[in-house]
Amino acid sequence: VSPPVVGVYETVVYGRDMEALAAFYREVLGLRLVEPVDELGAAFRIADDAMLLLFDPARASLPGRPVPSHGTTGEGHIAFAVAAESLDEWRAALAAAGVSIEQEVEWGRGGHSIYVRDPAGNSVELVTGDLWPP
Amino acid sequence: VSPPVVGVYETVVYGRDMEALAAFYREVLGLRLVEPVDELGAAFRIADDAMLLLFDPARASLPGRPVPSHGTTGEGHIAFAVAAESLDEWRAALAAAGVSIEQEVEWGRGGHSIYVRDPAGNSVELVTGDLWPP
Repeated sequence: VSPPVVGVYETVVYGRDMEALAAFYREVLGLRLVEPVDELGAAFRIADDAMLLLFDPARASLPGRPVPSHGTTGEGHIAFAVAAESLDEWRAALAAAGVSIEQEVEWGRGGHSIYVRDPAGNSVELVTGDLWPP
Repeated sequence: VSPPVVGVYETVVYGRDMEALAAFYREVLGLRLVEPVDELGAAFRIADDAMLLLFDPARASLPGRPVPSHGTTGEGHIAFAVAAESLDEWRAALAAAGVSIEQEVEWGRGGHSIYVRDPAGNSVELVTGDLWPP
């Protein structure tokens, strides 16, 4: 039997244009960079115990890095929890940033999702409530 | 200015063989399934406020789903936080499950990582401590 997993420490999103990708997560989503952006990627602190990492798959997948190689192509998905009372502010902030909303979903369990795309085409969801079974 | 992001609610890992992929996260990592596995994917609750979702990219990327399409190919990456005192138990649990350790890294900041691959080739890290700047 395995010991418990405490939580997700690193969530990864991939994209080739790192400047544009990092600008989206920093400026549009307001996430906090904890190291300078470079050609390999970018690191944002989401909460005290969790990180969002951005990687260029062409660089992160090269062999001979100090850690195991990885890298995906295609459109990934990530959902960020936001406060229920912040949805109107989010719509205004996205509009001000020129980011169009792809879809909104009102969930049966009571939550609400706003879906946008980051500059690499990844599906980014801003969600209120807890949509999945406990 | 955007309202605050509270945390990452959904982290996604992709793979084509959903039975094998879900079995790895359920049986080897001990994560808790909250819905039955189907051909599209699987949903695990990591902590009260966070989910790990598995998707078959060939199905999740199809148009006409009730939510925006997404799906990646290639090897992704995810890191799970584990307790520092559980590393020996993890090594034993991985060995018992026939999962080989690809690499271990002792970090300068004091943490330690064990890297394995899931059945789809994604790089899965079990990490103690907080490796990134605060």
